[in-house]
Amino acid sequence: MSKQILVLPGDGIGPEIMAEAVKVLNLANDKYTLGFELSFDDLGGAAIDRYGVPLADETLARAKAADAVLLGAVGGPKWDTIDPAIRPERGLLKIRSQLGLFGNLRPAILYPQLAEASSLKPEVVAGLDILIVRELTGGIYFGQPRESKVLENGERMAYDTLPYSESEIRRIAKVGFDMARVRGKKLCSVDKANVLASSQLWRAVVEEVAKDYPDVELSHMYVDNAAMQLVRAPKQFDVMVTDNMFGDILSDEASMLTGSIGMLPSASLDANNKGMYEPCHGSAPDIAGKGIANPLATILSVSMMLRYSFGQVAAADAIEKAVSLVLDQGLRTGDIWSEGKTKVGTAAMGDAVVEAL
Amino acid sequence: MSKQILVLPGDGIGPEIMAEAVKVLNLANDKYTLGFELSFDDLGGAAIDRYGVPLADETLARAKAADAVLLGAVGGPKWDTIDPAIRPERGLLKIRSQLGLFGNLRPAILYPQLAEASSLKPEVVAGLDILIVRELTGGIYFGQPRESKVLENGERMAYDTLPYSESEIRRIAKVGFDMARVRGKKLCSVDKANVLASSQLWRAVVEEVAKDYPDVELSHMYVDNAAMQLVRAPKQFDVMVTDNMFGDILSDEASMLTGSIGMLPSASLDANNKGMYEPCHGSAPDIAGKGIANPLATILSVSMMLRYSFGQVAAADAIEKAVSLVLDQGLRTGDIWSEGKTKVGTAAMGDAVVEAL
Ligand SMILES: CC(C)[C@H](C(=O)O)[C@@H](O)C(=O)O
Ligand SMILES: CC(C)[C@H](C(=O)O)[C@@H](O)C(=O)O
Repeated sequence: MSKQILVLPGDGIGPEIMAEAVKVLNLANDKYTLGFELSFDDLGGAAIDRYGVPLADETLARAKAADAVLLGAVGGPKWDTIDPAIRPERGLLKIRSQLGLFGNLRPAILYPQLAEASSLKPEVVAGLDILIVRELTGGIYFGQPRESKVLENGERMAYDTLPYSESEIRRIAKVGFDMARVRGKKLCSVDKANVLASSQLWRAVVEEVAKDYPDVELSHMYVDNAAMQLVRAPKQFDVMVTDNMFGDILSDEASMLTGSIGMLPSASLDANNKGMYEPCHGSAPDIAGKGIANPLATILSVSMMLRYSFGQVAAADAIEKAVSLVLDQGLRTGDIWSEGKTKVGTAAMGDAVVEAL
Repeated sequence: MSKQILVLPGDGIGPEIMAEAVKVLNLANDKYTLGFELSFDDLGGAAIDRYGVPLADETLARAKAADAVLLGAVGGPKWDTIDPAIRPERGLLKIRSQLGLFGNLRPAILYPQLAEASSLKPEVVAGLDILIVRELTGGIYFGQPRESKVLENGERMAYDTLPYSESEIRRIAKVGFDMARVRGKKLCSVDKANVLASSQLWRAVVEEVAKDYPDVELSHMYVDNAAMQLVRAPKQFDVMVTDNMFGDILSDEASMLTGSIGMLPSASLDANNKGMYEPCHGSAPDIAGKGIANPLATILSVSMMLRYSFGQVAAADAIEKAVSLVLDQGLRTGDIWSEGKTKVGTAAMGDAVVEAL
């Protein structure tokens, strides 16, 4: 039976990098007879321009019907002054929430070929391989009530709510433990339990889930300390699990440790491993349309999709190997270029991966 | 007229490092005839042991009556299993809130003598000098309602509230602009306005305050991006202003960039520049009582106190110069020690600063 993949190139550099990822996906599809059927639609700013909303109902319906979603990136200055209720990011948050994609996997890996690119000392980051598991459909991103209002004294005020239920915490903790189990067997749960009520419940539930994983070593860390430790000694971490907001901050910090955020893919999974896959970097409007963006994170997102949603390990491995090979060949887009390497554009990089595959 | 200083050594290494800071303060008091009168009390775990609560009413009354408060650090494993309502951190949060110390100044400075200690490449951090202005008495740390409860279906859930009012944002934004004005004239306001209602108000009010500071260059950054940029290129920042929770995370990350968190003081000020001064590092229970902790952050907190609460610029400068001198002499506590330097303990380091002064 054929598998449906919905491709959402999005905004900024999205369409350019997605074009290369689609080349790679089409080749893998043929070579490994995966039976994928691709269809395309818009999300974010592109959807605002086309449908008047950042996620159209028909697009959401197609995403729900699809077996996996491949996303470029959303947002850009063009839509910065739009009504906050329909800004591009709202489309992203809505699709995450509506598809129930609560488990966000964000690897931070240092590619040995790119070790130079990190702003950290080589000995601090060499061999870095962290997986951040971020809760993606709960917490302060979606908490109700949230409101902006005028008080009786005429002053404006606004507030957000940070809620977590036991079941929300339990299912993301399980993802964390499951991932740790097949990796380095170490899970660090990050919270702010010395201040927040939601974090106190978080910590308690993670402790309970830990009983089912005696083979995984669990530790707890406050988020401020985690932000420090990532800079001081990032290699102490294997898998980190944390809430939506802390995960947003720490995963970006961790990805930057590698110096090659243009290389990092991510997966957002539901309870049945149906997922949406996207690069960690954003829509980079400043370089959009110039043909210089790095397509590798999107290509590696294809690999993650094959691995996590379809169990196509051989094809996933092959794509990762092809990416490694083009790096070995010295090919670099501008963001990861260094003296002595060959600078190439988006399409040339995509073609090189296709060639290597 | 004499000035009252309330000294709260606190827990862990607190008493040790405070003893050295008090030596320096006493000398400065004599030398510059500052007319300070010191008194001592307990906060945090030490207060729990003595009074049964982390901040006793009488201690709070003395803090309110004092002209400035000097704090060591609070917390430790001894009190980890205590009722959350009276854990040591609650004392810290209460004194901040009750004294109205909304303006938290956290410098992240790289001492040239300690450049080696950073985990970042020298060229990325050389000359680093950032000031983080953190809102300290509002937001999710104090927001009501907050609750932990059992739902009808038997599931536990907990939530916190993140509120900000216009006046809370305005006064901390002013601190940020005022600081930027006397420094590099660049202010970066950090929020998550693409997701949070409170951040949207934050950004709007900061923009309004900016009109009174045409000489300061204002930028806005999302917190996830700020966490990345601090790693990628921290020297792009001069002053950063942000909310309580984001400030907690980013100031710890920034301080670790310098590799010398044992060197960093902080100030928490009210509307009249009455303040509480403390080192950025915590109570480090693992090395408490060993006489090896670094007292320099606490000594530099004395210098900040002289500068911000008492306008004693000459005395403040002299203490900073004395600290710089002992570093030049090659004296180092264990946390900042490197090959070829002289390792000293807490008291020897304090004595050396006294000597230099
Ligand atoms: C665009 C924004 C809403 C989003 C988030 O905060 O989740 C992004 O930063 C991310 O991490 O995917
Ligand atoms: C101890 C804790 C409550 C405190 C905070 O989060 O504010 C500390 O981390 C700090 O930054 O001073």
